[in-house]
Amino acid sequence: MLYVFTGNGKGKTTAAIGTAIRALGYGKKVIIIQFMKKRDSGEKRFFKKHNYEFYQFGTKKFVNLKKPSKKDEEEAKKALEFAKKKIKEKPFLMVLDELNVAIAAKLLDLKDVLTFLKQAKGVNIIITGRYAKKEIIEIADLVTQMKEIKHPFKKGKLAKKGLDY
Amino acid sequence: MLYVFTGNGKGKTTAAIGTAIRALGYGKKVIIIQFMKKRDSGEKRFFKKHNYEFYQFGTKKFVNLKKPSKKDEEEAKKALEFAKKKIKEKPFLMVLDELNVAIAAKLLDLKDVLTFLKQAKGVNIIITGRYAKKEIIEIADLVTQMKEIKHPFKKGKLAKKGLDY
Repeated sequence: MLYVFTGNGKGKTTAAIGTAIRALGYGKKVIIIQFMKKRDSGEKRFFKKHNYEFYQFGTKKFVNLKKPSKKDEEEAKKALEFAKKKIKEKPFLMVLDELNVAIAAKLLDLKDVLTFLKQAKGVNIIITGRYAKKEIIEIADLVTQMKEIKHPFKKGKLAKKGLDY
Repeated sequence: MLYVFTGNGKGKTTAAIGTAIRALGYGKKVIIIQFMKKRDSGEKRFFKKHNYEFYQFGTKKFVNLKKPSKKDEEEAKKALEFAKKKIKEKPFLMVLDELNVAIAAKLLDLKDVLTFLKQAKGVNIIITGRYAKKEIIEIADLVTQMKEIKHPFKKGKLAKKGLDY
């Protein structure tokens, strides 16, 4: 199965994490890889503390999507290489968090990702992030668009620790 | 903060679970209450195993939304009473999973829920489920509509253990 959580609303990464929890609840092997995120977060603390497989690639800074750095590109490529290596372990589920954005920002070649997904058949995969490419949506089994109806950031409220990261 | 995850697509309950994981990662107190769900699931197994506060109310059967049973109503009312009691413990986050559906199926009085939410101010709350009432959306800080773009159930595929429950 290939699940895609996209759209501009909150809930994409958390839906992937929640699905990972379901799989872990049944004792399945889960590998979570976050693209473009090398930052402290509640999920990072949680999965590290419980010794689950959770990996981050990127830099501490948010990526400027219109002008990503060379380092951003290197890190995204490293993440994809890492996913290729880990898929051989045949997990039940692999989460590729923010992969859509990494493609949209041209940190990764869409073709390389599609080739990887073809090789990954048999492993359940979740891809998150805005701007999902139509080629990804086409091959997905399930796609949910998280649509923002209301968001506190719009009212100038800051991201809240333990809820938004 | 009051967050609402609604809509017909996959990802509402899992987004709530994922947010709970974030809060737990920072060592916060989290209470998860599922309405209309008294069933085995990955999240149930996970949270019970790790001794987190996770409670289910309902029956083993799926609720007939157009014709819920007396027992369904009793269970939903019990769940709301339980939430009222637990809110006094001042958790950082309380998840009220499927509460929207319990209201839509008239298992609960919308007014009672609104009164509870007013009393709960200061506690972060997540309400999930289709058919969110406009009165709930009005008082929410954040609302995401999980919109189904593609769903394998439509192709006759069954819910998959460790992914869909």
